[in-house]
Amino acid sequence: MSSPRWALPDHIEDALPLEAARLEAMRRRLLDEFRLHGYQLVMPPLIEYVESLLSGTGKEMGEHTFRMADPFTGRVLGLRADITPQVTRIDAHLLNRQGVTRLCYAASVVRTTPRSLLASRQPMQLGVEIYGHAGIDADIEVIRMLARTLDVAGVKASRIDVGHIGLFRAFAELAGLSAEQERELFAVLQAKDVPTLEAMTASMPAEAAAALRQLPVLYGDVSVLARAAAVLPAIPAVQAALADLRAIAEALPDLPLSFDLADLRGYDYHSGLVFAAFCGTSPAAVAFGGRYDEVGRAFGRARPATGFSVNDLRDLIDADLDAVLPGAVLAPAGDDPLLAQAVASLRAAGEIVTRALPGHEGTWREAGCDRELVLQGDRWVVVPLQGD
Amino acid sequence: MSSPRWALPDHIEDALPLEAARLEAMRRRLLDEFRLHGYQLVMPPLIEYVESLLSGTGKEMGEHTFRMADPFTGRVLGLRADITPQVTRIDAHLLNRQGVTRLCYAASVVRTTPRSLLASRQPMQLGVEIYGHAGIDADIEVIRMLARTLDVAGVKASRIDVGHIGLFRAFAELAGLSAEQERELFAVLQAKDVPTLEAMTASMPAEAAAALRQLPVLYGDVSVLARAAAVLPAIPAVQAALADLRAIAEALPDLPLSFDLADLRGYDYHSGLVFAAFCGTSPAAVAFGGRYDEVGRAFGRARPATGFSVNDLRDLIDADLDAVLPGAVLAPAGDDPLLAQAVASLRAAGEIVTRALPGHEGTWREAGCDRELVLQGDRWVVVPLQGD
Repeated sequence: MSSPRWALPDHIEDALPLEAARLEAMRRRLLDEFRLHGYQLVMPPLIEYVESLLSGTGKEMGEHTFRMADPFTGRVLGLRADITPQVTRIDAHLLNRQGVTRLCYAASVVRTTPRSLLASRQPMQLGVEIYGHAGIDADIEVIRMLARTLDVAGVKASRIDVGHIGLFRAFAELAGLSAEQERELFAVLQAKDVPTLEAMTASMPAEAAAALRQLPVLYGDVSVLARAAAVLPAIPAVQAALADLRAIAEALPDLPLSFDLADLRGYDYHSGLVFAAFCGTSPAAVAFGGRYDEVGRAFGRARPATGFSVNDLRDLIDADLDAVLPGAVLAPAGDDPLLAQAVASLRAAGEIVTRALPGHEGTWREAGCDRELVLQGDRWVVVPLQGD
Repeated sequence: MSSPRWALPDHIEDALPLEAARLEAMRRRLLDEFRLHGYQLVMPPLIEYVESLLSGTGKEMGEHTFRMADPFTGRVLGLRADITPQVTRIDAHLLNRQGVTRLCYAASVVRTTPRSLLASRQPMQLGVEIYGHAGIDADIEVIRMLARTLDVAGVKASRIDVGHIGLFRAFAELAGLSAEQERELFAVLQAKDVPTLEAMTASMPAEAAAALRQLPVLYGDVSVLARAAAVLPAIPAVQAALADLRAIAEALPDLPLSFDLADLRGYDYHSGLVFAAFCGTSPAAVAFGGRYDEVGRAFGRARPATGFSVNDLRDLIDADLDAVLPGAVLAPAGDDPLLAQAVASLRAAGEIVTRALPGHEGTWREAGCDRELVLQGDRWVVVPLQGD
């Protein structure tokens, strides 16, 4: 072993007091916001049978999921890499409601590989889902909640990319592609690899080929939607997808929306609108989501579904580099009832009060104290901490 | 597969909205209490190298720890079954403070086997630790915090058992036992198996044998300590242990303390005082703790340490069987600015407001609504929810 016994694996971190306090505060702030909007918190478990975890939305997570043998049941368990399929399972089978169901969550997931070079393998995922409503109004609410989440977190979205999986699916069907061809073409489009796209579409029916070649250039502001209506075939699937996108643009004029009709993020399980939010100038999305109406089917009960998730709560606290922990008040050891009273009132007012322990001569500043309680005459008063 | 795809493994559960809301509220309430007392929150990761997880306090957790291969580092990772060794690692190597350090945590751990027939394999563990102070005052503070935790949780301790590992260790040394004999004797004492104890001690030096035979009957109220002083050999280790126990009794007269000198809970890593708290008439401890001064040594830096942990936050919410989720106010869909204003003021006042989605005709009661906003004249007012 070259690293010391206490070293952590790559891309795995502790949150020490400052970061932990900020994560905790942000988690509460966002869960409170979700709660006031009617999203009910659920807490699915960290481990499940791997086939349940990888149903539906989870399929693409297979390679990212840690597996372990369960001595109790003899079956293979997975450590969740994504909470969405778990929430879908809860909606489908545990709650069993007939109507619109709003759920939210905030908890750690674990991935065998990090999402990027600087990412953690244990991101704290957080998000909301709406089940039981197939209309665009649910998608609008979810995108609105995403923007609000970033606002409340103080990081404000610089751009929200919106796309629609229905377009690509319609053209793949029009071209009569096999599942394998569709998957290849999907990869080419995601990479915006235009030469290969030209080559692959060369032998396809003209209408489908032309439409597929248009997708990579159909991105930008809302004017993209008018351009798309002009150049794409006027088949029902296209008209429905463009109507959805126009409804989003009309309902959310105050958001920094950008349209990207070749954006196929989450293509494996999404069925309609997809979107991703970016902050500042970072090229990595901090949150994404979309509609996944078919996913519940894996659990025997397909319900319309739409939602978003923030990849890692840490991404939302990184902006404030000047953050510090609030200072604590040091109280001396001892049984003086007046001191006990002073300590209790300070705590009741929300102040952190750290009691000294007899015989300890170290510093209290490193423990976060910046003030102390001292006896002046017959009163305990708070003064700046003396010494170190 | 006999169970449906969405079934969970045995002893693994979802927390659905009511339970999740109660767990979240309790978690916040207790972390806030810890924080006001100067305990800083830390969040160690779910997975670590298994040899780090099982160092020190973790040794006895080996058989309870899920292991998995790390494709990234090629080493064996463990899914933590206990947070205490992680916090000890953080104190020893990450914070590197010289003085008294108070830390706390509240997060899930996962065990291959449940602690009992009705227990979860994914308990939510929560606790506090004090590092860097060897005196009895730190133990007193920790037991006081444990009692306070149960008070704040509304479950109040019915009994707090206190013991001291130092007694058994002193007698084992006096008897010249090998490590293996000591371990055997430990098991016999834990089981209070008196016939086997008599047999095992028959060939030991008389003083040690007599002392060991006394341990199982030395339990009860504070008078046990005087009895112990009378019947146990007056060697320094015994006098020190009994002095510690007397100091606890004197400092915490208001707590339901009970002394049990054969209680060797956590014998593998504890070095001094040990204690366990019980609520109501349940025979299972809801929390336990003690002093473990030697544990940091596994991480290359032994620091005095004492703390407690609650086994599972769920145990603290089970008492209130009448709990219900707060009701939500249903607001109709639509763009009326007066409606938007009414919704915003209700939320600002802490009310949950659930917006209806156009075209949805299901029930809202199942989503938690018990009131609704309706337009009366030109004002939006809250009335009891009509219909289902």
